Amino acid sequence: MAMWTGLIEHYRDFLPISQQTPIVTLMEGNTPLLRAKRLEALLGDRMEIYLKYEGTNPTGSFKDRGMTVAVSKALERGAWVGVCASTGNTSASAAAYCSVAGMVCAIVVPAGRIAAGKLSQALAHGAIVCPVMGSFDDALAIVRRLSDEMPVALLNSLNPDRLHGQKTCAFEICDALKDAPDFHILPVGNAGNITSHWMGYRQYRQVGRIQHLPILVGVQAAGAAPLVKGQPISNPETIATAIRIGSPARWQEAYQAKDESDGRFVAVSDDEIVNAYRYLAQKEGLFVEPASAAALAGLLSLAREGYFTETFQRRQRQHRLDRDRPVVVCVLTGHGLKDPQTALQTFPLPETLPPTPEAVKRVLKEAMGRT
Amino acid sequence: MAMWTGLIEHYRDFLPISQQTPIVTLMEGNTPLLRAKRLEALLGDRMEIYLKYEGTNPTGSFKDRGMTVAVSKALERGAWVGVCASTGNTSASAAAYCSVAGMVCAIVVPAGRIAAGKLSQALAHGAIVCPVMGSFDDALAIVRRLSDEMPVALLNSLNPDRLHGQKTCAFEICDALKDAPDFHILPVGNAGNITSHWMGYRQYRQVGRIQHLPILVGVQAAGAAPLVKGQPISNPETIATAIRIGSPARWQEAYQAKDESDGRFVAVSDDEIVNAYRYLAQKEGLFVEPASAAALAGLLSLAREGYFTETFQRRQRQHRLDRDRPVVVCVLTGHGLKDPQTALQTFPLPETLPPTPEAVKRVLKEAMGRT
Repeated sequence: MAMWTGLIEHYRDFLPISQQTPIVTLMEGNTPLLRAKRLEALLGDRMEIYLKYEGTNPTGSFKDRGMTVAVSKALERGAWVGVCASTGNTSASAAAYCSVAGMVCAIVVPAGRIAAGKLSQALAHGAIVCPVMGSFDDALAIVRRLSDEMPVALLNSLNPDRLHGQKTCAFEICDALKDAPDFHILPVGNAGNITSHWMGYRQYRQVGRIQHLPILVGVQAAGAAPLVKGQPISNPETIATAIRIGSPARWQEAYQAKDESDGRFVAVSDDEIVNAYRYLAQKEGLFVEPASAAALAGLLSLAREGYFTETFQRRQRQHRLDRDRPVVVCVLTGHGLKDPQTALQTFPLPETLPPTPEAVKRVLKEAMGRT
Repeated sequence: MAMWTGLIEHYRDFLPISQQTPIVTLMEGNTPLLRAKRLEALLGDRMEIYLKYEGTNPTGSFKDRGMTVAVSKALERGAWVGVCASTGNTSASAAAYCSVAGMVCAIVVPAGRIAAGKLSQALAHGAIVCPVMGSFDDALAIVRRLSDEMPVALLNSLNPDRLHGQKTCAFEICDALKDAPDFHILPVGNAGNITSHWMGYRQYRQVGRIQHLPILVGVQAAGAAPLVKGQPISNPETIATAIRIGSPARWQEAYQAKDESDGRFVAVSDDEIVNAYRYLAQKEGLFVEPASAAALAGLLSLAREGYFTETFQRRQRQHRLDRDRPVVVCVLTGHGLKDPQTALQTFPLPETLPPTPEAVKRVLKEAMGRT
């Protein structure tokens, strides 16, 4: 097997890339799709569940998929400045890809509301970071204005090139499973991802690479659930900072993806998010950021109400599917290292011991007695 | 191209894995090997330079390569507890792989001297974390004693299974380049990695997958450079916490790798490390932890004294090589997200602005005027 050379090279035929496009890549994509057998057992073995771990992208989140395309295209068009608003992951990715492209990157973020890891990335990659006293939605409004008035490339997911890159997540899932899953679950903030994934599935269906389209389930945090509630939220609040967005830019496309796929939006509480966060790290070996855990929390909540089994049985009757259980993919969008504070608050550090084998042995025996 | 299924599946024939071994994987390996053209230009285009970015492994460092093999083998032997001492990356990886294997993981770390990201990982993955008042070397002495006295699997790189996994980094480099590089540069702390990489190159040479062996260059931080000085250091000190080790466990093997490959050990200052750290993030788009930047600092220091060109010319005369410039690979062992504090200290956060386009525009214009 040849080594991976980045998603633009791999999916070139499906992307708006020409021989003239300078490819700006950090070898993003080709992320793990892990079978979650323990989770399946926990839920009564009624589904085949896979976790798509996007945390192994170069900057630690799915945003790199969109950014390799957006920055390559911006460079092709002669841009030398990229701007974006961000809850953190977009800024980390934009800063990294602009730096390797030799472009200036300017980032507008809500002050004091970015996870430490993400902020450290944007700063390290040399972006011009502008923290503003306001929300993500305020930050987005500012960069929209800037890109209207100045010769700069807008790198938010309003930029259609971003969506083209991000749709490759759906391609990879289909390539690994040899078809689309029955259900595709993902966290939804600004709604660029759900828009792009739906685009990817439809494109693969059109060229015959998959036999059916999946049902899309978008998960939001209860305190930041405009799509679930059907109206913008003015003060979104949740531990899952990456999806703390009250007014999604891709509102209409998100509803379209849900409706066309016969899917749902669902809200989960911060407690459910933390439980899913703990479960993923401690049982599946996957450390994710809280927004990613929201996707699993949504899966667990819907599984409890029998949603997957019932919906699948209905489809079975309609389409005579050749499998007896639904295939469910849950997208884990970002790495847990993005937000070390949440981890250190959730899992407190034990007390310091004297440096002797006896002291450690005592702790070990106690803990092993408890398990 | 098929999707990647983890390094044990890919390199099975080169690993101590049988049909009986339960494979514990998070799809580690297959990390980016990036051509660093900008760095080449900076150094006068006298070398072909590649950066092997190990930060995209599931837990963010090369340690996952060794851990997938070590935990799989421990499970095969019936172990249900794994222990290790760590400066951070080993504990993060051991905790993750033990959690997915269903094993208990106990970790001994020097109190107060672990980067926040790494500590958050070990805790999140549910390991029993024992911070001790002492150094890494003290921690290692403790777990060695524990593994002698209790039925636990030692997961430090003293465990030969770890080295087998880690050698696959050399395999991937050779597979991507279609031969070994002329020089292979890496940071050296406990010296498991230099031992394993040399093992990998020799194995590939033996089966004819490569035509020659590389020269190995091991880089240490000036304040923690026992191999450079030829004697253990009792109070190692450096910003590069991952290689803050005064008494490497694989001392003898490290010297052997250096001597057999006709290589060198070299020390770099913390200032040089921070400069290389900044360069990688701002010019190559790669955010690494300080220990990884040490490798590049070593490369830069040796390039300045003409080491690569001179050594390569000598080899040219001896072996009549078919290339006119040396191929150099620099291994970047871990992700910058492992250590957000160092980033936030190195790159200070600008002041908060009012949430208006005008305020952001002013900052942008100022900054762009400066560039």
